[in-house]
Amino acid sequence: MKEWTQWDGFKGRLWKYGVDVRDFIQENYTPYEGDESFLSDPTEATNKLWGELQKLQKAEREKNGVLDMETEVVSSLTAYGPGYINEELKELEKVVGIQTDKPLKRAFMPYGGINLAVKACETYGYKPNEKMVEIFTKYHKTHNQGVFDIYTPEMKKARHNKIITGLPDTYGRGRIVGDYRRIALYGIDELIECKKADFIEGERHGMKGTDFRLREEIADQIKALKEMKEMAAIYGFDISEPAQNAREAVQWLYFGYLAAIKTQNGAAMSVGRISTFLDIYIKRDMEKGILTEDEAQELIDHMVMKFRMVKFARHTAYNELFSGDPVWATLEVGGLGQDGRSMVTKNDFRFLHTLENMGPSPEPNLTVLYSERLPETFKKYAAYISVETSSIQYENDDVMRPVWGDDYSICCCVSATQTGKEIQFFGARANLAKCLLYAINGGVDEKTKEQVAPAYRPITGEYLDYDELMERYDVMLEWLSKLYVDTLNMIHYMHDKYYYESAEMALIDTNVRRTFATGIAGFSHVVDSLCAVKYGKVKVIRDEQGIAVDYIPEGEFPRYGNDDDKADDIAVWLLKTFMSKLKKCHTYRDSEPTTSILTITSNVVYGKATGSLPDGRKAGEPLAPGANPSYGAEQSGLLASLNSLTKLPYEEALDGISNTQTINPGALGHTEEERINKLTTIMDGYFSQGAHHLNVNVFGVEKLKDAMENPQKEEYANFTIRVSGYAVKFIDLTKEQQLDVIARTCHNTL
Amino acid sequence: MKEWTQWDGFKGRLWKYGVDVRDFIQENYTPYEGDESFLSDPTEATNKLWGELQKLQKAEREKNGVLDMETEVVSSLTAYGPGYINEELKELEKVVGIQTDKPLKRAFMPYGGINLAVKACETYGYKPNEKMVEIFTKYHKTHNQGVFDIYTPEMKKARHNKIITGLPDTYGRGRIVGDYRRIALYGIDELIECKKADFIEGERHGMKGTDFRLREEIADQIKALKEMKEMAAIYGFDISEPAQNAREAVQWLYFGYLAAIKTQNGAAMSVGRISTFLDIYIKRDMEKGILTEDEAQELIDHMVMKFRMVKFARHTAYNELFSGDPVWATLEVGGLGQDGRSMVTKNDFRFLHTLENMGPSPEPNLTVLYSERLPETFKKYAAYISVETSSIQYENDDVMRPVWGDDYSICCCVSATQTGKEIQFFGARANLAKCLLYAINGGVDEKTKEQVAPAYRPITGEYLDYDELMERYDVMLEWLSKLYVDTLNMIHYMHDKYYYESAEMALIDTNVRRTFATGIAGFSHVVDSLCAVKYGKVKVIRDEQGIAVDYIPEGEFPRYGNDDDKADDIAVWLLKTFMSKLKKCHTYRDSEPTTSILTITSNVVYGKATGSLPDGRKAGEPLAPGANPSYGAEQSGLLASLNSLTKLPYEEALDGISNTQTINPGALGHTEEERINKLTTIMDGYFSQGAHHLNVNVFGVEKLKDAMENPQKEEYANFTIRVSGYAVKFIDLTKEQQLDVIARTCHNTL
Repeated sequence: MKEWTQWDGFKGRLWKYGVDVRDFIQENYTPYEGDESFLSDPTEATNKLWGELQKLQKAEREKNGVLDMETEVVSSLTAYGPGYINEELKELEKVVGIQTDKPLKRAFMPYGGINLAVKACETYGYKPNEKMVEIFTKYHKTHNQGVFDIYTPEMKKARHNKIITGLPDTYGRGRIVGDYRRIALYGIDELIECKKADFIEGERHGMKGTDFRLREEIADQIKALKEMKEMAAIYGFDISEPAQNAREAVQWLYFGYLAAIKTQNGAAMSVGRISTFLDIYIKRDMEKGILTEDEAQELIDHMVMKFRMVKFARHTAYNELFSGDPVWATLEVGGLGQDGRSMVTKNDFRFLHTLENMGPSPEPNLTVLYSERLPETFKKYAAYISVETSSIQYENDDVMRPVWGDDYSICCCVSATQTGKEIQFFGARANLAKCLLYAINGGVDEKTKEQVAPAYRPITGEYLDYDELMERYDVMLEWLSKLYVDTLNMIHYMHDKYYYESAEMALIDTNVRRTFATGIAGFSHVVDSLCAVKYGKVKVIRDEQGIAVDYIPEGEFPRYGNDDDKADDIAVWLLKTFMSKLKKCHTYRDSEPTTSILTITSNVVYGKATGSLPDGRKAGEPLAPGANPSYGAEQSGLLASLNSLTKLPYEEALDGISNTQTINPGALGHTEEERINKLTTIMDGYFSQGAHHLNVNVFGVEKLKDAMENPQKEEYANFTIRVSGYAVKFIDLTKEQQLDVIARTCHNTL
Repeated sequence: MKEWTQWDGFKGRLWKYGVDVRDFIQENYTPYEGDESFLSDPTEATNKLWGELQKLQKAEREKNGVLDMETEVVSSLTAYGPGYINEELKELEKVVGIQTDKPLKRAFMPYGGINLAVKACETYGYKPNEKMVEIFTKYHKTHNQGVFDIYTPEMKKARHNKIITGLPDTYGRGRIVGDYRRIALYGIDELIECKKADFIEGERHGMKGTDFRLREEIADQIKALKEMKEMAAIYGFDISEPAQNAREAVQWLYFGYLAAIKTQNGAAMSVGRISTFLDIYIKRDMEKGILTEDEAQELIDHMVMKFRMVKFARHTAYNELFSGDPVWATLEVGGLGQDGRSMVTKNDFRFLHTLENMGPSPEPNLTVLYSERLPETFKKYAAYISVETSSIQYENDDVMRPVWGDDYSICCCVSATQTGKEIQFFGARANLAKCLLYAINGGVDEKTKEQVAPAYRPITGEYLDYDELMERYDVMLEWLSKLYVDTLNMIHYMHDKYYYESAEMALIDTNVRRTFATGIAGFSHVVDSLCAVKYGKVKVIRDEQGIAVDYIPEGEFPRYGNDDDKADDIAVWLLKTFMSKLKKCHTYRDSEPTTSILTITSNVVYGKATGSLPDGRKAGEPLAPGANPSYGAEQSGLLASLNSLTKLPYEEALDGISNTQTINPGALGHTEEERINKLTTIMDGYFSQGAHHLNVNVFGVEKLKDAMENPQKEEYANFTIRVSGYAVKFIDLTKEQQLDVIARTCHNTL
């Protein structure tokens, strides 16, 4: 058992025998049942720094969204000297460390794909040094090249026709959350020792390729840990040993996260579940009398400021998928422990309070792990923040805790993984709506007219027959799920080979659990289309080659999003069927297949690539995002819509079921108090029925329209909204996506 | 079925349906039963070019063995413009293409290991550009780094103590022979098509990591084929289509080999079995009247000149293992077909004749595939060349043909692989003599006193007991064989990952057979030591820690190399036992384990690292090379010595059993004719009894001594001798190795 003076005052034993942050937290945290009245306003330093950062953000917006880009240096843990928000004010920064040498400057990260890194530069008028292009073309293969070297023609065609889409073959897969708390609790040296022990433990006679891969990964992790020490030393810190106070704990932890974002530009780079952990350090310091509440809030504010500064160089096609420059620096508050105690601490209030101290912001992607059993004071404060800022999301701790325990982190928008014990192989989406069209057209794409899927028999009748359609759809889903998994297997093999996340994996158990996250796009449209065929009549319009290109639904039919079992049962059937087909496939590194109903802003590009559907949605129109009902389908108010969602079993979509709703403030009540109470009641009801996720927006459509027309207005500079799975500044969306958001249902009644 | 005008006049069909060079040869070659009288002297162009090359070789020797080294450019197929022996005489070169831009200039090849590439430069006073060092340190991992990242401490210790030794973890493994003939026969475009078909053929649902590895390898092979076309274009040739005449066939084929030596610096870079193949083109041209014998010989001479120019940058430790700057550009002549016809053609004479036209030379490593049934004229001519030049070796076609067919190539010194259908994973050697000492000392190394093997019970008696020793030896051999195979598995995994031979593998079937070549060092000493214990008495001398450090054999005992079954049976037992233990291990990529009794010049360094042995050999003395009897053990003449070798079953040592003998010319006869006849008789007898290999040196010890004392004498400039498995210029050996060669038995009587 180890003992460090830095641990004086901490209770428990298990976490001292080996790396076990969860045990440390459970032994030492203090639940907080009080209200937000203890919170502090921003310090002068915070105001000054935040002012500087806002100036930088404004300058960035004026420069087309990118302030500066690296073109000479390949990003690494030690590629740069120290950098600050403002060199002259650096003494004010309580938490230091930025990705490059200058704030908001985007690093050059070629390992995912050199062409993409170059394209990202060129998108904003920069040109990377030719030497670097040569290195990553002639000498070092990149992930992107590796994948395209081995794709089958069928995969390329499916990808090109966007039936499988958004794949992480042109960008870092992300969604791996290092347990950054480990650095604070144990110090780097101890973590190196543990990894060395794992390296030795894996030795046995008869090791094979998979053993060698793991050994090399551990070796690379150890190198990354050593480089983290070097990186911290550049800022004047020695992180070999455990942090001895709250400020160090925040700083040590942040260095771990900084290591991740210096080496990986994954789509999602979550921070993880750090709030309760850090509260332990803050409380100890306060009890010692060496930290005030003002100082504590300042620490959290400064740390959050750093999370608001995370940037990656992206190119146009990427921005279309992930609009508004998100990084998913997801960070959780709330939740309950396995022992039933609330895990809400004062620090959870402090994190939410940053949205007041420094105004609304999309990042970090603040997520409340919700339970009816959370302290009322905290639920109310969170609802208040939602009503005021529309910047946070809610996820149901009561459905996640049984699966992932009480120390999971959200690794992207909504997907849970056990912190430090699990990673996710992110897999974007299969367009199940397009798959339905392939079933009708015998595998011919309705837009490109290419034969993409196998040439199964097409449907030729004037009206669609439900049984015939279901038979064909089943076969086509079978084809799609196999191809989808095969494709993802290749991607993750190559990502491991050419763009392994050694800095993040260094902070995760060697013997790691892996989920294989697939995703569904077009969910509501498939459900509504099948309803239209089953309960109404759908006439098929074919072009001169006999390809079905449009559909005329005749008569009434139930639709998903109205608490109608006729539709909702089909939704459950669809989810279960797809999931069962995925489970039949071999998944890379024996990972566990999961799926999500989640599309983030990609619903717009997915829709563009998808022809007209039997539910009446016209070709090119955006798909409904995530698990949301289709635009206009919800005819029975918010609660009925929410009820439809609650019927989807979380265990069939462990990667998450994303629901984004916009509520007119007036619908919630006339006073702030009424609104807070009503919102809390809605969420209690929604989540206690087993729903997984809710993005809460509280504003009217008029505000959106005004912001679209007058983006220069000061009040819209930080106007943040929740889209499917994350938050964005509304004015950072493309016009197309702004229109899509405006078109979404805004509930004026419950 | 393909048809090309370039194939006009060629017979057969099968080889037109797919890549099948062997079928082409069998359908089209013309055996030659005549003598050497048709051969031509060197042309003026040959003399001029060879004169130039000799000047360069002299300059090279004067510059410490290295004429020039690249320090700015990483070697690749297209890294350089065209290069010639002498720019001004380039029109004379009938076969063009060199490794870098200047003759004998050594390329910079970092993929095997950047530290080693740098060390090689520094050994000769060069300093590579720091940018390149940075690239292969920071951005691209090398094979060497990969291996050392994952070695276990036990492996490192075993390697450091040299019980496993000479491992290809610090140099390219080599021993992969591309079927360079394919380019001549089919042209590059057809080969690309075939590889593309293989790529598609491998597609299936549920592909895993090993499938992805293969797909990526094929993709890399296709890139290499495309680059070969670019490389040829630099010299003004379009090798897309088949060669249309002999000159093109020679040139196309050579470009394939050039691609190999531009991208790989493997220990052995064999040319393969090209002689009979090329004879078909030469004969067709002669029949058409477009080629004379003078021109044919010139083509072969010029090609051979290119093989004599192959150079790699090596560092000191490498040179100690592989002394005399060898590259093993091994090239075969002779052999029989499966149908019983001799495969000897006029071209086989032409290749041997290069040793007359341009004098003796260690490279290409000319190998006669011997059978009693070869035409007498050819056997005599080969014997004549041996007597005159000591530059060629013999291998038994009658034992190899049943295993490898009639189109195998020697991929290194003596190891056969089916051309274009098979590769070998080269694995250096386990020092079985040292293992015997570990058995006695309970795993403690007799030199370093480190506990290297598991701490099994040591032998403590004053005299060694045979049964006790055998029991301990068996356990220690078991440990060693497992560790050895585990180590090699890692090496080959990393070699595939970081230094894959895409240019060579592009010319080999995708569905390739792989052998896993292990090797034995100290063979004769183990046999003699066990004999000493079993049939004599061996007293043990121990140091103050009780570690056995010396042995005094008392009384007479039989020794290996005297045709005495008592010793020779133990030799067979040792080989079979080691092989059976290897077979119990998992071998990388499901390769087939084989072993060799072959040490090349490394017998000297291996001996240095090995303590005194129970047979009376003192600590530090060289081990006997390969399967040779120990120095001084042979007391019964050459024939008895050869007979001992014939008892070793080839099927237990498919990687080869190397025997190197030196015969005083006088022992063979008084006239050249007598010597030729006697040597032929000896080989007929030796090989018809099932022996595998013979290096034939015909000279007396006095000549060696004189050459050592007076290396500057003109007659010794190209004085070539056969050492274990290859040939060297005697004056290029270190003094230590010269003394070792002199110490070897020179048979003055048969």
